[in-house]
Amino acid sequence: MKALEDLVTLFTRLPGIGRKSALRMTYYLLKADPRFAQSLAEQIAGLQDQIKFCSVCGSYTESDPCPVCSGLDRDRRILCVVEQPQDVITIEASREYRGLYHVLGGLLSPLDGIGPDKLRIASLIQRIRKSRNESVPIQEVVLATNPTVEGDTTALYIRKVLEQEGVAVTRLATGIPVGGDLEYADRLTLARSFRGRMPL
Amino acid sequence: MKALEDLVTLFTRLPGIGRKSALRMTYYLLKADPRFAQSLAEQIAGLQDQIKFCSVCGSYTESDPCPVCSGLDRDRRILCVVEQPQDVITIEASREYRGLYHVLGGLLSPLDGIGPDKLRIASLIQRIRKSRNESVPIQEVVLATNPTVEGDTTALYIRKVLEQEGVAVTRLATGIPVGGDLEYADRLTLARSFRGRMPL
Repeated sequence: MKALEDLVTLFTRLPGIGRKSALRMTYYLLKADPRFAQSLAEQIAGLQDQIKFCSVCGSYTESDPCPVCSGLDRDRRILCVVEQPQDVITIEASREYRGLYHVLGGLLSPLDGIGPDKLRIASLIQRIRKSRNESVPIQEVVLATNPTVEGDTTALYIRKVLEQEGVAVTRLATGIPVGGDLEYADRLTLARSFRGRMPL
Repeated sequence: MKALEDLVTLFTRLPGIGRKSALRMTYYLLKADPRFAQSLAEQIAGLQDQIKFCSVCGSYTESDPCPVCSGLDRDRRILCVVEQPQDVITIEASREYRGLYHVLGGLLSPLDGIGPDKLRIASLIQRIRKSRNESVPIQEVVLATNPTVEGDTTALYIRKVLEQEGVAVTRLATGIPVGGDLEYADRLTLARSFRGRMPL
């Protein structure tokens, strides 16, 4: 059945979806309320039209500038630098952070030909400089790239670039996750959690 | 972002898709080739229009009767009885079986109010009787319902119903799956694999 096979093939292109999952999803849709299938189809078709990038911070938004950049209740002294737009959504969901964001749009990766010019680093510097003329200048930049080789390299690069900009540069703590187990922590995580130990 | 949240919520209604998977799929669609998102949407919207039930066997098909029922290369002496249309696809994918099918559309479940009249049992008997007037009558009915309480009950019920119909009634073998491990086989599976032991 071509219609069925075609949909299964399309589903398997989504991340984390294998053939078995794709089949289950397709069978479900075959039996589901037709209105559900229609809304799902419409939502998928309209997604890219409705979600744009914020011209200030580079995160996903329905209005430009995004609600965070234009929010009156945000702490404008602190700027969190992340790799991708979805990182903003993840951090916002934690409700732990009330400052601004800046999305790099990737990480430095010389082997893949991704240099500083491919990332939103120039606009980061511009934003910091421009904020000096505003009532509340940016005072701290939190580097929240992942604790991977590329994430660390990018963080170190940005720290260097911001040296002369008169802002504090910090990095998210790495260590054993809450609820984690020493036994299952890898050597690097353990080493970092020792280096980053805090007085109790 | 409503567009994003709405799609995530719709995705989580699909079987086996939790919030994290739904988010990953949505992010992927945000960045994907717009043509991919469009084909996925169209395929989902059109699925139920394109896939119908075969009026003979009750399985999914794009043409009626389905390619199996109308196939000249199928063994019309043997009829495999399954619970759902997708079971036909699963068995066809194994390329182990060349006979015909009959989909029950469910299993007997008195507690849920599903009696024999809710299943395609009457049409099964009719098919068998009608086949006696054809060049190749049905000689064997293989009961391929799952080896669960409901599947077994339904199989026993159909065996009884077919007693006077002059066909052999068989049941798919249950036992330790190929590549499985005795250690991980449950007691019932082990018991059945003893009962069904074969000369080597």
